[in-house]
Amino acid sequence: MTYLAILGFGTVGSGVAKVLTENAAEVAAGAGEEVRLKYIVDIRNIPDSPFAPLMVKDFAVVEQDPEVGVVVETIGGCGVALAFTRRALAAGKHVVTSNKQLVAEHGVELLALAKEHGVNYFFEASVGGGIPLLRPLFNDLSANRILSMKGILNGTTNYILTAMLQSGKELDEALKEAQSLGYAELNPDSDLDGTDAVRKTCILADLAWGRELKPELVPVEGIRGVALQDIRSAAASGGAIKLLCRLIRGEDGLTYAWVAPHYVPASSMLCHVDQAFNALIITGNAVGDTMFYGTGAGSVPTASAVAGDVVDAVRHKSSPRGIGWSDAPLPLGDPDTLPSRWYIRSEGKWHFTEPLTADRIPACEARYRVLD
Amino acid sequence: MTYLAILGFGTVGSGVAKVLTENAAEVAAGAGEEVRLKYIVDIRNIPDSPFAPLMVKDFAVVEQDPEVGVVVETIGGCGVALAFTRRALAAGKHVVTSNKQLVAEHGVELLALAKEHGVNYFFEASVGGGIPLLRPLFNDLSANRILSMKGILNGTTNYILTAMLQSGKELDEALKEAQSLGYAELNPDSDLDGTDAVRKTCILADLAWGRELKPELVPVEGIRGVALQDIRSAAASGGAIKLLCRLIRGEDGLTYAWVAPHYVPASSMLCHVDQAFNALIITGNAVGDTMFYGTGAGSVPTASAVAGDVVDAVRHKSSPRGIGWSDAPLPLGDPDTLPSRWYIRSEGKWHFTEPLTADRIPACEARYRVLD
Repeated sequence: MTYLAILGFGTVGSGVAKVLTENAAEVAAGAGEEVRLKYIVDIRNIPDSPFAPLMVKDFAVVEQDPEVGVVVETIGGCGVALAFTRRALAAGKHVVTSNKQLVAEHGVELLALAKEHGVNYFFEASVGGGIPLLRPLFNDLSANRILSMKGILNGTTNYILTAMLQSGKELDEALKEAQSLGYAELNPDSDLDGTDAVRKTCILADLAWGRELKPELVPVEGIRGVALQDIRSAAASGGAIKLLCRLIRGEDGLTYAWVAPHYVPASSMLCHVDQAFNALIITGNAVGDTMFYGTGAGSVPTASAVAGDVVDAVRHKSSPRGIGWSDAPLPLGDPDTLPSRWYIRSEGKWHFTEPLTADRIPACEARYRVLD
Repeated sequence: MTYLAILGFGTVGSGVAKVLTENAAEVAAGAGEEVRLKYIVDIRNIPDSPFAPLMVKDFAVVEQDPEVGVVVETIGGCGVALAFTRRALAAGKHVVTSNKQLVAEHGVELLALAKEHGVNYFFEASVGGGIPLLRPLFNDLSANRILSMKGILNGTTNYILTAMLQSGKELDEALKEAQSLGYAELNPDSDLDGTDAVRKTCILADLAWGRELKPELVPVEGIRGVALQDIRSAAASGGAIKLLCRLIRGEDGLTYAWVAPHYVPASSMLCHVDQAFNALIITGNAVGDTMFYGTGAGSVPTASAVAGDVVDAVRHKSSPRGIGWSDAPLPLGDPDTLPSRWYIRSEGKWHFTEPLTADRIPACEARYRVLD
């Protein structure tokens, strides 16, 4: 029997409680023993929840309870989440998180701390929500040299771009609709500006190449400049405008990392990823292209990944995985120097350019890099 | 340092030798130690191979060498492959295979033998070639109740169906072309008749539900009856004819397993899986739909999965995973009793029916179940 505590009873935390309870038999079969939820730490009162008897407000209760073997952190951000994660790892507890900001900004430190204390720090849910992505990358594909990764890893912006085309609305209107349906947060900045996608890009790079990519070094362009007419003309030409995370390992040994809206042709599977779905194509020197697709956000799908991590942490509690990356910076190249075709609007007309570096793009009113 | 032997130097075996050599640094980083190829066992002489110095003809050399920790079986079939796998496991060596027939027909016995001797028996490459599928299923998705799986898991037939549409050829002609390009074997029966897809269906069911599904119990219809006009009219209506592996866990507790050509609408990601690519959609009660896509066959992609298994086997050599399933039969339902829409040709015209069980389909010249 392993006891577990959830920190933060928000969207993901409540989903984790639900999945661990409803799928207790599957979790026990996978982990090789029963996994029982003992505490939920939240500063709020949630009296009408079935989990109310488990609620505590003081993290020290969890920290000091030797029965608690696994801590799930779903608080988000880098404030108390960072402090509690440090304390949990130092207390010898495995930690599982969905907190991409924390992993992207403090992963090196927290993974080293986990190693030092002989425990696991897992974060499958931090990229692609419920989609198995990170573990296949460092497990199944571990015999590959990773050449590139490209993906749609922000469900909110993909939902908005899909909705704009389907309902014929400009971004502001589509955003309001997405907010009313719960697909976008009241403060949508980190989604619309690409910050969220940048964090996920960094975690993928860290894992694939073993060195740290800091979020502030990734060139980013969000979707605020995408107009309905851009989306419509892309669709009319058989493609789609998608916000992509891009990572290319150049033959010069440099990594080219960026986030920007792209023109994606119909021949790419990514063109067919609509609504709030996410997908990532990983290209390895042995496997070629392999794609992972599914629900990139939401309470229960994200909880699926968290609970899968819990199972793996319990199963490997006596032999932690020891994943991690160096704090040496990943050597970066400038994506503007990578030639590619561009989909541009000039004097009101759309066309595709020949392969050009960014500085050679002719004067135009709008431009999207074409995914080749 | 772990030493390794490859049994069978055919398409997959030679790919494994290549990947382990070219990606030795990645393999060592993943495994936590160097993995060195020591023997290749094959009855043929291959004097002009760079691996010629490693060739031996007698498996007993491998069996009796205590330095060999991992054996890769890429012989295929259930003859010597079965005998050598039994002997390798009994000698305390981890075994990794791409042999779907062996796993589908003898998995229960071989996994029990592995457990008994404290070693791993891994077979990621047996389903979906290089695509990470099985490990995500029993690892990342372990906290899910698996509700259904559907996929394109035979690259040869998918290549042929794609080629028929693109080149306007009937099946016989497209097959000859596929054979000349190496996408189909000289004896294509197990691909065209669905036998290969059935074996993969069984392995997925075994892993997902923990009980044995025997290949001979799976209703199967291959692609020999698919005419060019069927494919053309499906494409004209926005869909595609695809050979699908289907697994549904009914609310009655029965599993419905079958392999047959289906009409796949454009709204399904599977409609866009062309050429020799494979894809599998796994639906879990927490994660929802998640899809895995990539190269389902071929020397080096398949070797990627084998080498990934080798890395995992070495990393967990002192704590084997202990995966397996019971020899109790998986309780089955009859797929013909599952209602669905059908795409049928009657008096030369195509149309979609209302949801019907198979016995209610009106008289027609051709019929395909519609994937909903």
